[in-house]
Amino acid sequence: MDSDTICAVATGDGMTAIGVIRVSGAAAILTVEKVFVSAVAGKRLSEQRTRTLHVGNIAYQGETIDEVVVAIFRGPHSYTGEDVVEISCHGSRIVKRRILEALTHSGARLARAGEFTQRAFLNGRMDLSQAEAVADLIESSSDAQRRIALTQLKGGISKKLKELRGRLVELSSLLELELDFSEEDVEFADRKELLQLVETIIETVGRLTETFKTGNAIKEGVPVAIVGAPNVGKSTLLNALIGEEKAIVSDIAGTTRDTIEDVMTYDGIMFRFIDTAGIRQSADTVEKMGIQRTYGQIEKARVILVVADATKGKESVETVVREVVEKSDRRWQKVVIVANKTDVAAAEWINGDWKETVDADAVIRISAKQGNGLKELKEKIVDLIEARQSDDGEVLVSNARHYEALVKSRESLERVREGLQAGISGELVAIDLHRATDSLGTITGEVTNHDVLKNIFSHFCVGK
Amino acid sequence: MDSDTICAVATGDGMTAIGVIRVSGAAAILTVEKVFVSAVAGKRLSEQRTRTLHVGNIAYQGETIDEVVVAIFRGPHSYTGEDVVEISCHGSRIVKRRILEALTHSGARLARAGEFTQRAFLNGRMDLSQAEAVADLIESSSDAQRRIALTQLKGGISKKLKELRGRLVELSSLLELELDFSEEDVEFADRKELLQLVETIIETVGRLTETFKTGNAIKEGVPVAIVGAPNVGKSTLLNALIGEEKAIVSDIAGTTRDTIEDVMTYDGIMFRFIDTAGIRQSADTVEKMGIQRTYGQIEKARVILVVADATKGKESVETVVREVVEKSDRRWQKVVIVANKTDVAAAEWINGDWKETVDADAVIRISAKQGNGLKELKEKIVDLIEARQSDDGEVLVSNARHYEALVKSRESLERVREGLQAGISGELVAIDLHRATDSLGTITGEVTNHDVLKNIFSHFCVGK
Repeated sequence: MDSDTICAVATGDGMTAIGVIRVSGAAAILTVEKVFVSAVAGKRLSEQRTRTLHVGNIAYQGETIDEVVVAIFRGPHSYTGEDVVEISCHGSRIVKRRILEALTHSGARLARAGEFTQRAFLNGRMDLSQAEAVADLIESSSDAQRRIALTQLKGGISKKLKELRGRLVELSSLLELELDFSEEDVEFADRKELLQLVETIIETVGRLTETFKTGNAIKEGVPVAIVGAPNVGKSTLLNALIGEEKAIVSDIAGTTRDTIEDVMTYDGIMFRFIDTAGIRQSADTVEKMGIQRTYGQIEKARVILVVADATKGKESVETVVREVVEKSDRRWQKVVIVANKTDVAAAEWINGDWKETVDADAVIRISAKQGNGLKELKEKIVDLIEARQSDDGEVLVSNARHYEALVKSRESLERVREGLQAGISGELVAIDLHRATDSLGTITGEVTNHDVLKNIFSHFCVGK
Repeated sequence: MDSDTICAVATGDGMTAIGVIRVSGAAAILTVEKVFVSAVAGKRLSEQRTRTLHVGNIAYQGETIDEVVVAIFRGPHSYTGEDVVEISCHGSRIVKRRILEALTHSGARLARAGEFTQRAFLNGRMDLSQAEAVADLIESSSDAQRRIALTQLKGGISKKLKELRGRLVELSSLLELELDFSEEDVEFADRKELLQLVETIIETVGRLTETFKTGNAIKEGVPVAIVGAPNVGKSTLLNALIGEEKAIVSDIAGTTRDTIEDVMTYDGIMFRFIDTAGIRQSADTVEKMGIQRTYGQIEKARVILVVADATKGKESVETVVREVVEKSDRRWQKVVIVANKTDVAAAEWINGDWKETVDADAVIRISAKQGNGLKELKEKIVDLIEARQSDDGEVLVSNARHYEALVKSRESLERVREGLQAGISGELVAIDLHRATDSLGTITGEVTNHDVLKNIFSHFCVGK
């Protein structure tokens, strides 16, 4: 385990009112003491209590670099579990650089990305899923993302998994006990009870796996595809939703060929709106490729907005809606008919019962050009994905690595179930059971390896 | 005086490992207490001692926003002189925004730019020149800038000015005493002594005023003009000095018409290198305007690099050097002949004694294209401006507002001197004396007005 002293700026490169430099290691306090001149004559940092603040100067090679406030956190009750010192200075680039210079010349070295959090993990201050949550929390830009990350940071997933894993380990040990007595053909583990337990765990793991669709959508932005026949106003709708001119709008049908997307946060949830090429029979090779991509977007979207031209009536969207419904999985995908151009459509077209013939979750009438109905549309999208339910405490899997581990563990558990049902020997069942516990253990880091750790922490920002 | 509670992010908008939110005001601790849930059950922030750190959550409307560390600084020994709380959170935009939301809903309001430092000034924690130094320190990007700002922050200028002002105020009171006895025609102030004192102060103010050239150059970047006849390699030299392709280089004489500049820090000093249009007789209107600008740059530069084509010998630069010397003030401007193209020049041209006939401070032989001699050139420039001498403790005026106040004060003092020499009445002398003390007082803020304050603090970043 590392125990040298590391330092880094924790507040970014830029010019800010305050800059914070973090120092951690067994000799962190002594290292800072070498360059710190207290405002109170004779005061020594190394003699100060934990969680106290001290005003003074950072001085190096006979020169004062800045006036600072120093915070002392003594291990093991610190972020990294080691002694930690945080130096608050004036947030100028040169001040921060010179303080780092002073620290590195006094025995510290520059920290690698994520190294503080890596030490927190190695010192048992948090498990791996919590360490990953720190990065997610820092990167969160919507309130729903923040909530998922915070729940994970507070050990939401770890707790659930430790419970499951504990029960599996118990099973394993019973099966292993049988192996020790294999000559005698005893069964310590009641096969029926065992099967029941495995099935319960498969169900729980399965439920967790399913939350990934929502969790990941919230983390990456909920994908909302805007589809429809050419020239019904899809790009105008995208622009109206995101409030800027992102997509090129023209009266020429087939203007949008690439899929264009942008993110927008409503009601604490980040959405990724994806404008697509209009769906129609086309001879143009490029346009055909665009339409092919549209189908791809439909498959990935949580919500599909089928834009219709209200001046033409519901018949005009029926083909597109049929295609969308065919290509989507209505168990988790929602389809909304957006009747556009209501500012110029005749009343009978607008008020006709669109929903009846076209199997959609909702029909919203708007004028993308005039901005009418946009608020209702946004509210309907939020309602449909019900992402607001992810509240404090509820565990949502949002990390692809966790998801993969859960899927692997489930596969192993299913083999365990098969084995038990087929009555095969405990020895063979135990192998799959081990695999399942190992997969679950990689999530919290009870089971891990150097490459996984390196990969996780290298994606952190420096100073965390 | 303000006493409501203000809050702001002190570590910038961006995504960083740590974010710091600053809260100040008589009710700062109570305001944070409303949204802080200590990790230690029942612990109340308002009962905690000054300069202590506390771990917990920020919670608002029943929801936890983030895990934080809270620092308490009780007034008057705090940055603003009021109670100050600094909340260290995860540096995500949404986390910072939500915490500000929680604070503003609990009685705080968002701080204006510079409002924390303004309160520090209003509460007597620092004078105006020190408050201005805070902004300069944050903005400093070279070590010399940092040093000037830190000296000013530590009261370097204030101390000097208070001393001078104190002596002037003493003079004033003696003269005013005479006015009280004006019927009796007494002179409490010995005119000869008074004159001597005024002259000493004029000299000191003058010396301070003169430091502005260096101080301002260091703050804004020391201007170094690159001049010479067309096609001698001025733009190639600029590119070589700053290490990127900023100026358009071509073999066509007269390529550079606009003045192009870029900054570069050497040896802790920021330089502004300015490429200029080649000096020659030209009929082209645009080129003539460019040459006119070149003369303007020569007048402002601290160092003028006259680039010569070494393949053509010193005679070729004599005209340009003559012009440069004519337009410059050699008391504070330095002229360096840069003999370029030494990679292709014949030995007799290179080794000829350039300095003899052309009155320059130095001659450096380089090849801008090959990079030869650039290091020597940079070192020579640093030596010539001697800006390195601005070390800890030495007072350099770097602020244009201070400079103007010093000039005004000097003008008033010169009128005082004239008055004393002409033996005019104490009453009239006192008016100019007042003006001088007022001008000096505006620097430290002993004399000030709302507009000046507003102007100074509105240029601060938020959170400081």
